[in-house]
Amino acid sequence: MSGFPYTNKQFLLIKYPSEAVTPDCFELHESAIEDLANNEILVRNHYLSLDPYMRGRMSKAKSYAAAQELNAVMQGGTVGEVVASRHPSYKAGDQLVCGGGWQLYSKINIEQEGEGVRKIDTSQIPISAYLGAAGMPGITAWYGVNKICKPQSGETLVVSAASGAVGSVVGQLAKQKGCRVIGIAGGPEKCTYVVETLGFDDCIDYKAFPETEDLSAELLKLAPNGIDAYYENVGGYIMDAVFEHLNPFSRVAICGLIAGYDGRSIPIMNPRAILVARASVTGFIVSDHLDLWPQALSELAQVIDSKKLVFRESVSEGLETAPSAFIGLLQGQNFGKQLVKLI
Amino acid sequence: MSGFPYTNKQFLLIKYPSEAVTPDCFELHESAIEDLANNEILVRNHYLSLDPYMRGRMSKAKSYAAAQELNAVMQGGTVGEVVASRHPSYKAGDQLVCGGGWQLYSKINIEQEGEGVRKIDTSQIPISAYLGAAGMPGITAWYGVNKICKPQSGETLVVSAASGAVGSVVGQLAKQKGCRVIGIAGGPEKCTYVVETLGFDDCIDYKAFPETEDLSAELLKLAPNGIDAYYENVGGYIMDAVFEHLNPFSRVAICGLIAGYDGRSIPIMNPRAILVARASVTGFIVSDHLDLWPQALSELAQVIDSKKLVFRESVSEGLETAPSAFIGLLQGQNFGKQLVKLI
Repeated sequence: MSGFPYTNKQFLLIKYPSEAVTPDCFELHESAIEDLANNEILVRNHYLSLDPYMRGRMSKAKSYAAAQELNAVMQGGTVGEVVASRHPSYKAGDQLVCGGGWQLYSKINIEQEGEGVRKIDTSQIPISAYLGAAGMPGITAWYGVNKICKPQSGETLVVSAASGAVGSVVGQLAKQKGCRVIGIAGGPEKCTYVVETLGFDDCIDYKAFPETEDLSAELLKLAPNGIDAYYENVGGYIMDAVFEHLNPFSRVAICGLIAGYDGRSIPIMNPRAILVARASVTGFIVSDHLDLWPQALSELAQVIDSKKLVFRESVSEGLETAPSAFIGLLQGQNFGKQLVKLI
Repeated sequence: MSGFPYTNKQFLLIKYPSEAVTPDCFELHESAIEDLANNEILVRNHYLSLDPYMRGRMSKAKSYAAAQELNAVMQGGTVGEVVASRHPSYKAGDQLVCGGGWQLYSKINIEQEGEGVRKIDTSQIPISAYLGAAGMPGITAWYGVNKICKPQSGETLVVSAASGAVGSVVGQLAKQKGCRVIGIAGGPEKCTYVVETLGFDDCIDYKAFPETEDLSAELLKLAPNGIDAYYENVGGYIMDAVFEHLNPFSRVAICGLIAGYDGRSIPIMNPRAILVARASVTGFIVSDHLDLWPQALSELAQVIDSKKLVFRESVSEGLETAPSAFIGLLQGQNFGKQLVKLI
């Protein structure tokens, strides 16, 4: 034994869900951590990010991300602090964001796996924000707004999952561009938050409009001049309802289709809307555009720092709660960016 | 009476079809033509173009084109010759393309309705081609290929309705760009034509693969490296099968969704494919891009003239045959550009 004084806890994925994710897909393991080899660092993870894309990986089906292997640690973004280092560029106390996974400690060989490791400055921005508005979800919002939706002042933009980590940033960025912004979220509490705290013009509680036709009628009331840009996080009948109001030359950014993540693929019922509106519907994954991250992060940090960008976190306490928090996220039970506090 | 010696025959639309178009939607009228007023010309139409978009107009539902009014002459593109003129820029004998409608003669007030009227030169290119490869369908192909599909040499492009007026041009333009081109058409005769006469690399007879899964398996055989660009004229399960093979960053041009024109809107069953492939799906209508018509027409005329672009016409004889030819077109019975000869 090396005497290296760290004990890890980690969740492995032990089976792929057939439909909805269930707690027995995961198994908690505890093990001693072996001493570092050359070029390795050991990170104590402070927060784990839970994100809808993880559901897409829990399958052998073709997806944009590599499949999550069975009997391996669940992958996921983390922020944390270096506790031991055998790499010259890192020292104990360095704070960083990395793909640490669902575990307390992550051992990373910087030369081999260092691509996703980035040091962060927490003097102005809290460490957890680097998993949200100042991290991957924020950049995801930034990319879809600036590179796909391209909303112009005076246009109407709609965003689904509006109170979430991505949607909340989407709407605020669009408001800053002078758009009329309508959110779609689940429940009156989230809708009130979206309008009163985030400053969207309106927010529709989709649970109050459970059919395409009802939701479409409500959209017509709130967007009487039609919809110029749509940022899609959800899919299903919400997308169908929005599609009925697309203006000529409108832009749809497909960021996520969480409605279909439980193994069911939910159709677009009226693709003719794309033709009638001469719309562009573009899927994207923010990790394809790493070249734009520095620009995006710098713009986001600026508006976070100056309090022009508000965000909210839903923090689950302790690694043991990760599976239930993740299942809740897929069911829309979170309110803001879903994190797990690991320390 | 004026003694003006022309008698017109014209088809009016007298009811909107509820599902499939039936002959009793149309009524043939015969009437004397009144003498020309100032700025008017009278055109003897030689060919009428029949196009799938007409089905979309035969409804009060929102579409990209204005609805076809009831009890009015069916609209449609024509080529013909001026037989009488009271406008200084036109004289008897001038040949032109215009929206003459389903009738033998069209009276056009050039100052008020002259926008779609264009004189044509039939010394190198036959007059009927101005309704096909050298006209709206050709420009439609040109636009979707050059501005949306943007196929690069070595990429694989798939086009549905491959033997049709638009699809046949799409594939030939893509071949000229160095692509591997796979057509989808209905029946062995059309498929043989697409490969042997038009020069596509392969053509799938969708009638031999009537389920998404079968068609998808066949596409995998012919496009083992995936599909980079898809030019969609059809929709329905053909689109679903193609979507399963979209490569990262692929481009889909939605030109038409003829599979859904009979009142039924056919879903996209797996929109997640758009996200997984980070694809762009763009609907377009060529009349939005009139600024590009001169460039497109000039490029098309050049390749037609030099025999690098092959096209085929399906000519129905006599105005009286227009309704049955149109119904046949919607059912895929035409073989090449569907025209009605009026003279």
